[in-house]
Amino acid sequence: MSELRKDPVTGHTVIVAENRAARPDEFAPLAQSQRFVASDARATCPFCAGNEHLTPHSVAEYPRPSGEHPPRAESATNRDMSWQVRVVPNKYPAVDGGAESAVANRNPLLSPPGSEISPGTGRHEVIVESPHHLLRLTDLSDEQVALVFRAYRDRLAAAARESGLAYGIVFKNQGPAAGASLEHLHSQLMALPFLPLDVARELQLGVETHRRTGRCAMCALLDHELTASQRIVAVTPDFVALCPYASRVPYETWLVPSTHASRFDSCSENLANRLAQFARRLLICLETSMNRPDYNYLIRSAPFDTSPADHYHWRMEVLPRTTRFAGFEWGSGCYINPVAPERAAAELRVLAEPQSG
Amino acid sequence: MSELRKDPVTGHTVIVAENRAARPDEFAPLAQSQRFVASDARATCPFCAGNEHLTPHSVAEYPRPSGEHPPRAESATNRDMSWQVRVVPNKYPAVDGGAESAVANRNPLLSPPGSEISPGTGRHEVIVESPHHLLRLTDLSDEQVALVFRAYRDRLAAAARESGLAYGIVFKNQGPAAGASLEHLHSQLMALPFLPLDVARELQLGVETHRRTGRCAMCALLDHELTASQRIVAVTPDFVALCPYASRVPYETWLVPSTHASRFDSCSENLANRLAQFARRLLICLETSMNRPDYNYLIRSAPFDTSPADHYHWRMEVLPRTTRFAGFEWGSGCYINPVAPERAAAELRVLAEPQSG
Repeated sequence: MSELRKDPVTGHTVIVAENRAARPDEFAPLAQSQRFVASDARATCPFCAGNEHLTPHSVAEYPRPSGEHPPRAESATNRDMSWQVRVVPNKYPAVDGGAESAVANRNPLLSPPGSEISPGTGRHEVIVESPHHLLRLTDLSDEQVALVFRAYRDRLAAAARESGLAYGIVFKNQGPAAGASLEHLHSQLMALPFLPLDVARELQLGVETHRRTGRCAMCALLDHELTASQRIVAVTPDFVALCPYASRVPYETWLVPSTHASRFDSCSENLANRLAQFARRLLICLETSMNRPDYNYLIRSAPFDTSPADHYHWRMEVLPRTTRFAGFEWGSGCYINPVAPERAAAELRVLAEPQSG
Repeated sequence: MSELRKDPVTGHTVIVAENRAARPDEFAPLAQSQRFVASDARATCPFCAGNEHLTPHSVAEYPRPSGEHPPRAESATNRDMSWQVRVVPNKYPAVDGGAESAVANRNPLLSPPGSEISPGTGRHEVIVESPHHLLRLTDLSDEQVALVFRAYRDRLAAAARESGLAYGIVFKNQGPAAGASLEHLHSQLMALPFLPLDVARELQLGVETHRRTGRCAMCALLDHELTASQRIVAVTPDFVALCPYASRVPYETWLVPSTHASRFDSCSENLANRLAQFARRLLICLETSMNRPDYNYLIRSAPFDTSPADHYHWRMEVLPRTTRFAGFEWGSGCYINPVAPERAAAELRVLAEPQSG
């Protein structure tokens, strides 16, 4: 029989139903979605070096760390290789800082009673993670991934300093099953003028838990999980990787700082570097274990207006996309997970162990 | 610029960003997912007539209405064509009524503080919507669709009578992008021992709205939408079809009874028949407009323990699946919709109008 599990940190409910892994599937698996890889990708890809004119002007660029030599293939070209990571405003933003407001021109009588409407102000940026047409973060060196995570931290900090914004999130859509529309490896930052409902709910639960127990829910969880050890994937002096108790999808993995901290955007450059290295290592384990699945990852940090908070603990979530979001999920907000997190963690743990010999 | 819209009935927030419809997509569209249609489908499909031994025993069967003749192709075979709609327990249930509990055997120390765990009791049924290997509800006659919707109502009512269950939902996953794993047309019923978080939130908002305004939020919405007429798709004496103010996906459509009623499972057979006819007509419009997309639909009814309630109004939701659930949605619980509901409704309205001449 399956189990209904409620997560102590997020409050969401998951049905862990391992029997469902055995059901037949007449359709092609999601993770093997058909891909279009154009042979002339470099000519048309807006994220490849040399095609900078295809995107809006960059808001930040990270050059190659000094002392590194460019790969041979590129040193022979004339292309602009001065950047290694490039951040640009999204050309098709879901929210933006524009002054023009369609809302102001709209007849307010057309909004139903009880509804709310506001202009979609905010920031929507793209972090281009390599000048080369590579498809996965794990194709990059540790040094390059460190630049990427430094960009995440810096751009989130920049959004936090802007007035009128309440919450920012960094996320990656890896592959079409995870919502990507371009294959050149990139992540996105979205900063919003309001606190999304799910975020507000988790914060509220954190405040209640802290009031009731005097502890941060995540700190208490880490203590418990490290003792129980059933769902631990890997541990470093700075981070714990675990499959959460109420994992929403098979092999969901959280990377959590061992020391309490509420804001990712105020972590040190050293810690961001070590997160980058740890994340790359974990993603390699996931790709090995699951045959290079599409996935989302995202970094959840406290809202911009919170000073260091005792009740919120930032984290990175990795969500492989091998199950499908269906009518039940639309109708309930619950998830059905056919792989118990204890099983997923055991498998990943073996892969994450340093190889002996 | 985009708009942030908060729905007056559900409370969720959507970013309506029409500019995003223009962004390029290097991957194959979701709705055209590759399909495996076996030439020997009838031999291996567990839902085809003649293969009843491949599923658990039925819990309900609906015969052909008297006076109808079987299609010629089937009258020549020996297969068991006594049923037209067949309801069976899901062979791979997410929840079930079994007495064996893995939870009872589990070490309670392994559950983290603040978490909750309970056995996955409940009902998970499959409504097989034709004895023939057909793929879409719109391939059925009005009479056959009426049988299907009668089964939805009856099975939800049966679940509501069972002790220990709190909430039931009927849903269809049409095609792989919508989460289907078998192509033979079918829907599912899931009945749970708890009230899912999203459902509880909408109910709470309904109670608050009713207390504040003295009215059901949906009744007030219908009045407004019928007057404003911008988001109305079609109207019959019994139902209104509209694209909701904060549509989560392009062409999301709600079918709402015009007269207040909280429970779908206590509607009359006549009303269920007319919903079936209206839903079929609307699905044909959607399929015409969007080139036969994959979609989910679901019927949201009040919890089992509520007597007729002034603050809840049942509805059917149709959600075409042409956009992808990505990192932003995981991180926020908000949706980005590149097609304004006013535009979608205008397009569907033309198709829904009775043809003249």
